[in-house]
Amino acid sequence: MSAMQPLPGFRDFLPDDCAARNYIFEKWREVARRYGFVEWDGPVLEPTELYKKKSGNEIVGQLFNFTDKGEREVALRPELTPTLARVVAAHEREFRKPLKWFSIGQFFRYEKQQRGRLREHYQLNCDIIGESDLAADVELVALAIDILRGFGLTEKDFVVRISDREFWTDFLRDKNVPEERWPEMLQTIDKSERESREKTAEKLGMLADPVFEVFNKGATSAKLDNLVEGLRARGLAEFVDVDVRIVRGLAYYTGTVFEVFDRGGKLRAIAGGGRYDNLIAQLSDNAVSMPALGFAMGDVVLGELIRGRLQPERKIDIYIVIAKETRRADALAQVQQLRDRGYRVDFPLTSAKVGKQFQTAEDLGATLAILYGDEWPQVKIKTLATREEKLVSHQELSAHLPAHPSLSS
Amino acid sequence: MSAMQPLPGFRDFLPDDCAARNYIFEKWREVARRYGFVEWDGPVLEPTELYKKKSGNEIVGQLFNFTDKGEREVALRPELTPTLARVVAAHEREFRKPLKWFSIGQFFRYEKQQRGRLREHYQLNCDIIGESDLAADVELVALAIDILRGFGLTEKDFVVRISDREFWTDFLRDKNVPEERWPEMLQTIDKSERESREKTAEKLGMLADPVFEVFNKGATSAKLDNLVEGLRARGLAEFVDVDVRIVRGLAYYTGTVFEVFDRGGKLRAIAGGGRYDNLIAQLSDNAVSMPALGFAMGDVVLGELIRGRLQPERKIDIYIVIAKETRRADALAQVQQLRDRGYRVDFPLTSAKVGKQFQTAEDLGATLAILYGDEWPQVKIKTLATREEKLVSHQELSAHLPAHPSLSS
Repeated sequence: MSAMQPLPGFRDFLPDDCAARNYIFEKWREVARRYGFVEWDGPVLEPTELYKKKSGNEIVGQLFNFTDKGEREVALRPELTPTLARVVAAHEREFRKPLKWFSIGQFFRYEKQQRGRLREHYQLNCDIIGESDLAADVELVALAIDILRGFGLTEKDFVVRISDREFWTDFLRDKNVPEERWPEMLQTIDKSERESREKTAEKLGMLADPVFEVFNKGATSAKLDNLVEGLRARGLAEFVDVDVRIVRGLAYYTGTVFEVFDRGGKLRAIAGGGRYDNLIAQLSDNAVSMPALGFAMGDVVLGELIRGRLQPERKIDIYIVIAKETRRADALAQVQQLRDRGYRVDFPLTSAKVGKQFQTAEDLGATLAILYGDEWPQVKIKTLATREEKLVSHQELSAHLPAHPSLSS
Repeated sequence: MSAMQPLPGFRDFLPDDCAARNYIFEKWREVARRYGFVEWDGPVLEPTELYKKKSGNEIVGQLFNFTDKGEREVALRPELTPTLARVVAAHEREFRKPLKWFSIGQFFRYEKQQRGRLREHYQLNCDIIGESDLAADVELVALAIDILRGFGLTEKDFVVRISDREFWTDFLRDKNVPEERWPEMLQTIDKSERESREKTAEKLGMLADPVFEVFNKGATSAKLDNLVEGLRARGLAEFVDVDVRIVRGLAYYTGTVFEVFDRGGKLRAIAGGGRYDNLIAQLSDNAVSMPALGFAMGDVVLGELIRGRLQPERKIDIYIVIAKETRRADALAQVQQLRDRGYRVDFPLTSAKVGKQFQTAEDLGATLAILYGDEWPQVKIKTLATREEKLVSHQELSAHLPAHPSLSS
């Protein structure tokens, strides 16, 4: 074996990829914290049972699951919500309600390998636990919007399509559809945008005409109107469309559901979520019952959407040019002092031509080069962007440097 | 099943745990970047073969390994170095040498469960690739020291014990020990601090006396002296001891090796590493040969060492108190504006008594509370630490707030 590649569906993050990933993580973190959300995390490996319990046995076909050396059935986590329910059920008494929690982590699915389709991705999960009022739905959708605004995206770039499971359960009750058939009908409505009209009609049977009528003329509800008004009060109404075609595939949603798409309609969903008021009770065998809602946003579609906006990362602030090896010890003492003060500093580990050193300084994106050579005990400070140079006494160097925060920003 | 616990050896990170974890990650990142290191990452799942190739078949007993649905033998990564060698061999032409790379990630070992022993941990890995000069060894050890200094630790808290594999290979050559027995002898010397003198003596045989003599009187070499001098030039010599009892268990080290311990000697190693000049060639089937060195530092021992130093995280900057529900819309417009400006802001999702709202503000660690009530169109700003209050017009609110960076710091 001389595999130079990662496993199919897995990514190596070379420095530029890692910088882009970190930029996404940092923005997620920053905006979630502005909303008073606090970060938590669970294990990447959980008992397979945790996922079966929520999603049925069919989920196992999509898991990286195995039997560990202690004969435990375990799986790499495909999603965070079951872990959240487990952790909240175990610890909820320790926290003031509502909980506003977010998490950034990696998730895994063993899907049939399609071209470019990944088997791992990173996801931001944001959840509010313990509040049934619609104000929590407004807060959560506002957060999803503000996170994307944080990446410089506007209402021209994305739309949050908001819907309500209760709109459809009221509809099905009104049409006298027996409750055991609701999940199947909801799934068909959810898939209607990705399947032919004929196929949807066939699956809906008698319901086809009334459902298509709703699709054609649009529909809303008092709850959805209130949700939009809540967002309007925050100046965020232009980012949302009420669109009852959104149902979301997962069985556990009980109320508001939403998905975020690029306005161009070229990409898969950027994020999705909704209210799941019964799930914590279900997953904790009724040990704890709490209303809850949340959404997840992945790094892959978002990454495609913002790709053009990323700036290459500056790797250092200051490069120390050692023009004479006799000055190396003085230069290194300075390197240490500057790093201690928080500057990002690099220097040549071995002797190198001065021109090559300046080239390295440019390649690393340094703002300043400081030259240790014949001028000693003076050193030359060169601003690389402007080529401006000045000679200063090495003892007074620090007075001539920009303050650290502006330099490193 | 109603498992409220994570799998044995795995951790849930509740918000305070996660804040402590993030604090460690951020400090690791900050200091590595000051040294001009750039971040990268690999997959958490790799072919099992990658680890067998480096460490032999016996490693498999300690892995979380399994056969995936595509009949691939895969393992959760136990360490980063094999992935680093794979990635560097595939991509080294894209980068200026030496590479200075760091990575922060999670690693897994299926060890027999001992009380409190974890099966996952996080690790910082820092490596310099493509430089054989001792200056790289100095730079790497200095980084390990400065990372720990970044946590507020001093030479009274920890020591870097530095040694050199070549000291011992020279020793073994000098004693005419055949080369095939070197790995076994090096392992015995490595284990001598954790095993009885009798057991070590038995394993060393004829070598016991000369080895114990070295242990007793101490030893050094020109290379180790130069390494210490390089650290002295940076003011870091007091953090290191030359100590040839350090060998490190792994077979692939070729030169400098070091381990970091708490001065109290109560904990396991905080970090360890060394030079592995042949490993990239070995792991890439000689596709690429480059000198390299690196170290790893885990989150668990470090976490024990700094536990008392962690400050509880302030969760928000400003709490908006809604004293009259008729002012809720005005309050929410302000919430949105303040969050847009970067403040961390929370508010009651539903109506609540004013006293309870102030209590929540205190619990969340808010600096300021802003009260929306009878005073409208004025609002009351209360500094929670001093109980100082002032009334200001709601339009002029922002002029009365501290600048964001100081507030959020």
